[in-house]
Amino acid sequence: MEAGNISSVLLLHNAFIVTMDSDSRVFRNGALVIAGDKIEAVGRSLDILRDFSHRSDEIIDLAGRFLLPGFINTHVHTSQQLARGIADDVDLVTWLHKRIWPYESNMTEEDSYISTLLCGIELIRTGVTCFAEAGGQHVSGMARAVKLLGLRACLTQSTMDSGQGLPANWSALSTDDCIQSQIELYKKHHNTADGRIKVWFGLRQIMNATDKLLTETKKVAQELKTGIHMHVAEIPYENELVMDTRQVDHGTLSYLETIGLLGSNLLAAHSVWVNEDEIGLLAKADVKVSHCPAAAMRMLGFCPVKEMLDLGVCVSLGTDGAPSNNRMSIVDEMYLASLINKGREAYTKGTTNPTALPAEVILKMATINGAKSVLLDNEIGSIEIGKKADMVIINPFSWSMLPLHDSISNLVYCMRTENIESVMCNGQWILKDKKITNVDEEEIFSLAMKASSDILKRAGIILPDRLNCL
Amino acid sequence: MEAGNISSVLLLHNAFIVTMDSDSRVFRNGALVIAGDKIEAVGRSLDILRDFSHRSDEIIDLAGRFLLPGFINTHVHTSQQLARGIADDVDLVTWLHKRIWPYESNMTEEDSYISTLLCGIELIRTGVTCFAEAGGQHVSGMARAVKLLGLRACLTQSTMDSGQGLPANWSALSTDDCIQSQIELYKKHHNTADGRIKVWFGLRQIMNATDKLLTETKKVAQELKTGIHMHVAEIPYENELVMDTRQVDHGTLSYLETIGLLGSNLLAAHSVWVNEDEIGLLAKADVKVSHCPAAAMRMLGFCPVKEMLDLGVCVSLGTDGAPSNNRMSIVDEMYLASLINKGREAYTKGTTNPTALPAEVILKMATINGAKSVLLDNEIGSIEIGKKADMVIINPFSWSMLPLHDSISNLVYCMRTENIESVMCNGQWILKDKKITNVDEEEIFSLAMKASSDILKRAGIILPDRLNCL
Repeated sequence: MEAGNISSVLLLHNAFIVTMDSDSRVFRNGALVIAGDKIEAVGRSLDILRDFSHRSDEIIDLAGRFLLPGFINTHVHTSQQLARGIADDVDLVTWLHKRIWPYESNMTEEDSYISTLLCGIELIRTGVTCFAEAGGQHVSGMARAVKLLGLRACLTQSTMDSGQGLPANWSALSTDDCIQSQIELYKKHHNTADGRIKVWFGLRQIMNATDKLLTETKKVAQELKTGIHMHVAEIPYENELVMDTRQVDHGTLSYLETIGLLGSNLLAAHSVWVNEDEIGLLAKADVKVSHCPAAAMRMLGFCPVKEMLDLGVCVSLGTDGAPSNNRMSIVDEMYLASLINKGREAYTKGTTNPTALPAEVILKMATINGAKSVLLDNEIGSIEIGKKADMVIINPFSWSMLPLHDSISNLVYCMRTENIESVMCNGQWILKDKKITNVDEEEIFSLAMKASSDILKRAGIILPDRLNCL
Repeated sequence: MEAGNISSVLLLHNAFIVTMDSDSRVFRNGALVIAGDKIEAVGRSLDILRDFSHRSDEIIDLAGRFLLPGFINTHVHTSQQLARGIADDVDLVTWLHKRIWPYESNMTEEDSYISTLLCGIELIRTGVTCFAEAGGQHVSGMARAVKLLGLRACLTQSTMDSGQGLPANWSALSTDDCIQSQIELYKKHHNTADGRIKVWFGLRQIMNATDKLLTETKKVAQELKTGIHMHVAEIPYENELVMDTRQVDHGTLSYLETIGLLGSNLLAAHSVWVNEDEIGLLAKADVKVSHCPAAAMRMLGFCPVKEMLDLGVCVSLGTDGAPSNNRMSIVDEMYLASLINKGREAYTKGTTNPTALPAEVILKMATINGAKSVLLDNEIGSIEIGKKADMVIINPFSWSMLPLHDSISNLVYCMRTENIESVMCNGQWILKDKKITNVDEEEIFSLAMKASSDILKRAGIILPDRLNCL
């Protein structure tokens, strides 16, 4: 934050405020006071205007717009944004070995910076104020982009010390190298950018991690009081391999429990192939799950989200990376999460369950559960006094959302990114009246087109034509 | 068309044209000539500019934008647009008996007009040029709106001559009433609005149709050379009831075959609960299927789309009505259709199938298969000489679609409605540079808010609050 802004007081009124606080309060005609980077007051417009108008530097009438906590994307590969479209409609082995690994292993730090800028623009335009990086090669490149865009993020290095078929320049790292490099990144970037950047520890997945890496990661993350982001139980093959090689009776989750990795600072992305006992383990250890509906449908399978929520597991939402999805939009993931979890029961129970994951639960997943997942629920995830001013302002008065019989439901089922008008993070507008404030979008588009095409050339990735291109 | 426009010649060049013709031609730098309401030429920009510039009234450089045939939505309840949000997260019985029936049975023709206007705006903004109405009460209201908006449509009356629990004002109709009223609508509206409006015959669903209604509908539709739009095999209960009461060994599809209803002019919406034999029946009789992915996930179940396509069934895409979905967007249905049909195989085969329903197949479903489904493939569904000028122009140069490694794939997986810039139907712009040309949107929004709230009052529908509204 600039020194000059510290005492700046902003009053927003005449808004439909969905606080997502522990009392689930919604102010039909609400107002909010932001002092510096924090929320100083929230309540009815009448009360707030009476008490705070005299000392506000700026007063904005939101004319009935919706105001929510900024959405939190708990699993996103920012480095993969430049790879959007390089691996669609192909099987998983082609996806990984012929497209994603060659692409990622040919990225420079500058590429990662550009990719994060492009991804960040999409995140902001889809209402996201905070994200958890799923793990990439160049955390310093990501950090530079996050700082510039004004977003909040938990950055993670993609960490592997074993596994077959890896690109040559990835397979040389020892366990100690992996841990040391992350400790250095932590020292360099943790709590930088006015505290918006956190550095987490990464574990790509169990097939690329020795036991030593797993336990060392747990130990060091605990010492540094930070989180661990790991892809967990993504495909049946993963569980089978774990059962064969690591002597447990189900899969990754069961194994992680035996070596003590489960804990409240573990963010387990996907967690699709888990059984009832393992859901119990997640709940007991307060492990956070990032559910990525689009990626699940495309590559992994149906995650038992309802069962997890019923048992008290904290489930949040993620987009995964562009080549797994390809929309990097929590707005669309909210819609999808509800639909596929309603539909999923057609297989288990014979009919869909239209009451599963109702709109208010989905909103919780995208906000306060997201904040818990990134270990920041004391700072973000709801509109509450003392929390950081991270929020999204939505204009519902258009063809995509009208009529407004059930505003909460319309936020989840009707809203499209067109409706997202302004986004604030840490008390600063990062999208204002549909304009990205901190970077020149067109310039980034040009950089991204050039950089992504160069990576594909270096990586030798050639895509087959579809249809009959003349 | 206005008399003054008959000879008007428009040349669009420098476009990425995805023709969806039988040769699957894509012109990377293509051009198109539109004379009056028809396509006169399509080809490389160089050739078209050389041959047609001298006699074009207007020449537009599309600067690399994408040009596709207008999307076709083959199952949409225009009358339900005002009911968006009234039946979310409730079970099917509540949905139908407490919300949808009371709502629909309290609509006036004017309400239907307003609802179709609001729905039509969403259709246009999501790239749709032609839709098949799933069946509502007031076809004359719909026709008035369609004429004004400039869309193309196959309109259908919701037709029921039996069934339990219907609202009082719906249960009085005899079979003859049903048929006669549709014949009158046909006479009044078929081929009106410069030929943009067709009138079809409707069958709400088998539980609301006597055998007499089914066979009479078939006979009259055949005589009038028009189509039949029917909801088919939506839920397991429907099939069970048909098996119990109509003596067939599976369900609705099997029964319709025994009474001779299957044929190339039948548009069978949903067709979710069909077995392998019944898919064979669909293919053999050239029945068209409207797959509605969002509604299927929410209310019905997984439609075996891949199996249908593999057997040669013509499957197109529909949004269903607003209370079943709630986004009335073929753009989103394309994305969903691919995702859920990839994911569905996790249950049948143990893993998802990321190669199922690739982007080019999805585009086919939304264009030429849609045209076949509405019996208009000789006129629309592809960019070809002699066909009507129905098209959508997409600006892909933004955060939602970049980079463009695989343009065809990005159209399906990345495009959002923001990217849709202009839409032409029958040679006339109905969306131009993001502006709806023929109606005042703001005025319709006001009318819609008022009308929808009045219907709910008349119908006595009161929605429970979500969260803790203050």
